Amino acid sequence: MKLLKDRIIKDGIVLNDSVLKVDRFLNHQIDPQLMLEIGREFAHRFSSKPITKILTIESSGIAPALMTGWALNVPVVFARKRKSLTMNNVYQSTVFSYTKQETNTLIVSKSLMNKNEHWLLIDDFLANGQASQALIDIVQQSGGTIEGIGIVIEKTFQPGGKQLREKGFHVESLAMIKSLENGTIIFDE
Amino acid sequence: MKLLKDRIIKDGIVLNDSVLKVDRFLNHQIDPQLMLEIGREFAHRFSSKPITKILTIESSGIAPALMTGWALNVPVVFARKRKSLTMNNVYQSTVFSYTKQETNTLIVSKSLMNKNEHWLLIDDFLANGQASQALIDIVQQSGGTIEGIGIVIEKTFQPGGKQLREKGFHVESLAMIKSLENGTIIFDE
Repeated sequence: MKLLKDRIIKDGIVLNDSVLKVDRFLNHQIDPQLMLEIGREFAHRFSSKPITKILTIESSGIAPALMTGWALNVPVVFARKRKSLTMNNVYQSTVFSYTKQETNTLIVSKSLMNKNEHWLLIDDFLANGQASQALIDIVQQSGGTIEGIGIVIEKTFQPGGKQLREKGFHVESLAMIKSLENGTIIFDE
Repeated sequence: MKLLKDRIIKDGIVLNDSVLKVDRFLNHQIDPQLMLEIGREFAHRFSSKPITKILTIESSGIAPALMTGWALNVPVVFARKRKSLTMNNVYQSTVFSYTKQETNTLIVSKSLMNKNEHWLLIDDFLANGQASQALIDIVQQSGGTIEGIGIVIEKTFQPGGKQLREKGFHVESLAMIKSLENGTIIFDE
């Protein structure tokens, strides 16, 4: 997606050989018009699938997932990272974040998931695939069907995307980065 | 906002005399079309103000804030609830959540705020006003101007809204609830 890649080049900051900071348009400050275009692009790429709901993870997945839900006209559910006092009866799975060096429990209320749903999973980044695996685990617990996985930025030099595709999941990444070495962003065309 | 109040009546769950659960359309599952209408309504209500950016709080504020940002064509910044490894140089303020019975530190990167910005603050709920006060504190640290505060659901039987208006802030709440007693939602018309 050219619009996104141009924005990554303009506003992305390479922190080290594996971390790209996109705080200016995706996961701290958000550009709503860019998110709308991202939502339209995901809707287009998964247009042949009978998607009935979207699942993402708080917080950085919410913006692209919301716009995709708007474009596909389906509800968006975001997995929470810990249990709040008003939540009972949840599906859960654990995820380790390499960026934040912490383990979170992802939680989704059972009342929002059932075996007849066809899910599109959306997330901001795909690197080692831990977060996607946790979302897959949660959908599988609910008995629902996973129609695809939409990723805003995939780091193809990390193994998550390859592993998901080898398992047969339909993964669409809007920007694929094959290297951040020496402070330079190189896309995987 | 009639669309929102109808949805609260249809899908809101009164947990006790002070807690309304809106997990089916606002803060766990999100209805994108409703969020778009909420965004348009906030844009309309603050149309006379020279807003240049929106500030909200992860996670439940992101959806209404994003759609308001889309409608006003301005960026959206969400305050994070703890420090991530890739963030330095932040404004911060603490907030106590009565619902979750926990204290969080809200953090916004200094690089996203400057004294020339005119801010609209957006949040999902207004009850005791702790979260709004923390956002106000952060904007004031940055030297920016607060043009208004947009709230999806205000509980007018709690003091936050009254206190903010007495301080001179322009507060717009799309649904105002004056009582949740006996399991019944009564709106403040």
